[in-house]
Amino acid sequence: MNEQNVIPDELRWVRGRPGDRLDENRPTVKAIGRLLKHGETDTVRKLLRRWHPRDIVELLVQLPLKRARKLFLSLPPGPAAKVIAGLNDDFRAALLEDATIDRLIKLFDSLDPEDAVDAIDELPEEVQARLLPHLRDFGTISELMTYKEDSAGGIMTRKFVVVPPDWTVDQVINEVRRHANRIKKLSAVYVVDADRRLTGYLKLRDLLLHPSERQVADIMRTDYVAVRSDMDQEEVVRITERNDLASVPVVDADGRLLGRITSDELQRVVRDEAEEDLHLLSGISPDTRPDEPVLGIVRNRLPWLLAGLVGATVSGSIVGSFQQEIAAAAILASFIPMVMSMAGNAGIQAATVAIQGLATGTIWLGDLPWRLGREVLGALINGLAAGIILAAVVLIAGPYIGIQEPALLALTAGLALAGVTLLAAVLGATIPLLLNHFGIDPAMATGIFITTGNDILAVLIFFVAATAIYL
Amino acid sequence: MNEQNVIPDELRWVRGRPGDRLDENRPTVKAIGRLLKHGETDTVRKLLRRWHPRDIVELLVQLPLKRARKLFLSLPPGPAAKVIAGLNDDFRAALLEDATIDRLIKLFDSLDPEDAVDAIDELPEEVQARLLPHLRDFGTISELMTYKEDSAGGIMTRKFVVVPPDWTVDQVINEVRRHANRIKKLSAVYVVDADRRLTGYLKLRDLLLHPSERQVADIMRTDYVAVRSDMDQEEVVRITERNDLASVPVVDADGRLLGRITSDELQRVVRDEAEEDLHLLSGISPDTRPDEPVLGIVRNRLPWLLAGLVGATVSGSIVGSFQQEIAAAAILASFIPMVMSMAGNAGIQAATVAIQGLATGTIWLGDLPWRLGREVLGALINGLAAGIILAAVVLIAGPYIGIQEPALLALTAGLALAGVTLLAAVLGATIPLLLNHFGIDPAMATGIFITTGNDILAVLIFFVAATAIYL
Repeated sequence: MNEQNVIPDELRWVRGRPGDRLDENRPTVKAIGRLLKHGETDTVRKLLRRWHPRDIVELLVQLPLKRARKLFLSLPPGPAAKVIAGLNDDFRAALLEDATIDRLIKLFDSLDPEDAVDAIDELPEEVQARLLPHLRDFGTISELMTYKEDSAGGIMTRKFVVVPPDWTVDQVINEVRRHANRIKKLSAVYVVDADRRLTGYLKLRDLLLHPSERQVADIMRTDYVAVRSDMDQEEVVRITERNDLASVPVVDADGRLLGRITSDELQRVVRDEAEEDLHLLSGISPDTRPDEPVLGIVRNRLPWLLAGLVGATVSGSIVGSFQQEIAAAAILASFIPMVMSMAGNAGIQAATVAIQGLATGTIWLGDLPWRLGREVLGALINGLAAGIILAAVVLIAGPYIGIQEPALLALTAGLALAGVTLLAAVLGATIPLLLNHFGIDPAMATGIFITTGNDILAVLIFFVAATAIYL
Repeated sequence: MNEQNVIPDELRWVRGRPGDRLDENRPTVKAIGRLLKHGETDTVRKLLRRWHPRDIVELLVQLPLKRARKLFLSLPPGPAAKVIAGLNDDFRAALLEDATIDRLIKLFDSLDPEDAVDAIDELPEEVQARLLPHLRDFGTISELMTYKEDSAGGIMTRKFVVVPPDWTVDQVINEVRRHANRIKKLSAVYVVDADRRLTGYLKLRDLLLHPSERQVADIMRTDYVAVRSDMDQEEVVRITERNDLASVPVVDADGRLLGRITSDELQRVVRDEAEEDLHLLSGISPDTRPDEPVLGIVRNRLPWLLAGLVGATVSGSIVGSFQQEIAAAAILASFIPMVMSMAGNAGIQAATVAIQGLATGTIWLGDLPWRLGREVLGALINGLAAGIILAAVVLIAGPYIGIQEPALLALTAGLALAGVTLLAAVLGATIPLLLNHFGIDPAMATGIFITTGNDILAVLIFFVAATAIYL
């Protein structure tokens, strides 16, 4: 056949095996990339016809984004839908960026409503508005979309098996059989009463262990932990981690079963929440993506840079108000970077520890006095150590670079550094806890604000110390 | 009975129900805390005798650490072991801090070897060395401890069900039944050949769906994804996420089945890896805990503060080398905070995005030219915007605060800010990718180093610009 001549030998894809997987497929990825570059999309599509969706996902992730998008857009809706369900949110959004509305309609109509909702959530709002009315499952999807994206309802799946307590094991097994192909990650069957209120659950293994004529009510487990649909996803993760659960049922205010949250969804939430903290602390908007376009770089980062600039302008004004002192001893300006750097770093260190402690639930407010005591003492030691080192450097280098009264300058710099470190650490440790107490996301308001707040304090403390001791 | 008089009504613990759980138990937590404070440990222990371990965990987490430790140390080894298996690593380590070796021996002897290994890993090395030889499962535990802590082998459990391909469904069900109580999170049965090499797997539901006399070989799934025991845990998570797996089998170099990694373990790894990145970027050692003692605050933070101080000293020296210029125009010193803040923030923003992209696998090196192009353009826009704003502020405020030649100073400050932002973003985006290319953990070497490296560049660029344009 002709096709065999067209497809080079290196295009044989090696199925995922531990360790050697990526390396063995590198030539294939390169070859397919080349074909796509030369516009041979049809050849590639033919080639992929018998591939498992998982392998196509693997290939897409390894291609340059531009070619991955080209390839993805050329896949028929069926395989494309299977591929899209296996992608992570960021990559999915990147791949869908260029898709037309018609293409999106076909794609989402081949997906389960839940998978469709997840993917639609990632689309820009104007695309959503144009797309939604055309979808086959418009009703279900709209209903699912009423849940807040980061609430238990927003991350649950409605695919689960539910049985009444008066069924027998045999009936339950038949029900599982009926749903088996439709449901991923099935680990438990839920038991509900006549009002659909959750009353218990059975693990799949319970079905294997008990005789087929036993009644559900006799063998069901009642020590279930459920979450309310309006619960924040971060709280959901905290509950599942503390109770060592792989998945968790979601109920409404009356205890009626609405859905369940699977283990892979929980894993995704853990990653997303951690990333959000990382973003906020680094001064980037939480929805920043690694492959963001230029406009995203501006929108997600400029506001934080400007916020930092405002703070720095205040620091600058403080420095400016000490112009006479600086004109009298220009060497003082050399210490601005040192005190600013220490203040910024010590503050962000303490804030990170506090924020992470709040996120993982290992900080108790009952423990606050102890915590702050430790923080103060530790910061004092760190500040004194850094202060002594800087003072020593000034004392030793002073005579060589013509510093007047090096001992006084050393005392000034050392004391200012110690004081600044102490204060920055205390503020860094307290502010996140305070914000959390008032229901504000501590990561949100920390980051750049703690850094620049401390910068301001730092130059102030330094110049006050310099005026008092050195000048 | 007397006991009823001793135990006040508020001590009734409400089992976990969605949402209202924590609030309803707050009086109980307070009352128990009070009892512990007054040394009534025996009363509390009696009270907890019938409590579910999960509720004791819940109680411990809500008590101040000091009292939680007191209570935990007073629990009998059996319940204490059950409690300890349900705790997260940090909290466990905090609780065990005061425990005697004898107490630890009793505790770990009541745990499964795997749970024991996890907890022992968190103990200080000198305690491990004294403890290990006394444990009942010394052999197994030592063997498990040979795997690197953050490798697939280090996080796997050896509790799983394995069957040969010639068994019938009925035989497999019996095997599951035999192991059911011992194994948590059982979702699949693995199929191995005579050499114990992994050849396939069955989901539990497959056992329900097929007639009991069918042979395993006929119905087993062969599209398994396994990981090698020496694979890094971060790579394991990437593979499971990409393949949408809840758990994954672990094999040795010859493909022999060694264990499996469960969904909750994967979730823990995701959290730990994200925390590690957050820590490193914030300038804290990766093993920092929110409840670290004073010595930990010094050990985990001082080295990074000093590294920052070294960089800042270089910045300070550069400022110092422009002493004459500063003496001539002290206003120049006011701009040090602005350029430093912009450089630090823009650098850390770009670095965070790059590091996160590397961690989640959404950055492809094949995409590098595009990525950098976007980053340069975005940084240029951000830098110009900030530069124009700062220049406008100088122009407007200049006449009022007696700045000489405000137009030239505005030009200097604006240009320097734009240039610094551009350079900082490019370095921030490239350095993590370069480090990753050479096999160094990018989060490790970024954080404070990018910030201070950019600080140095920032003051240099600013003073060079000032000398050229303003003076």
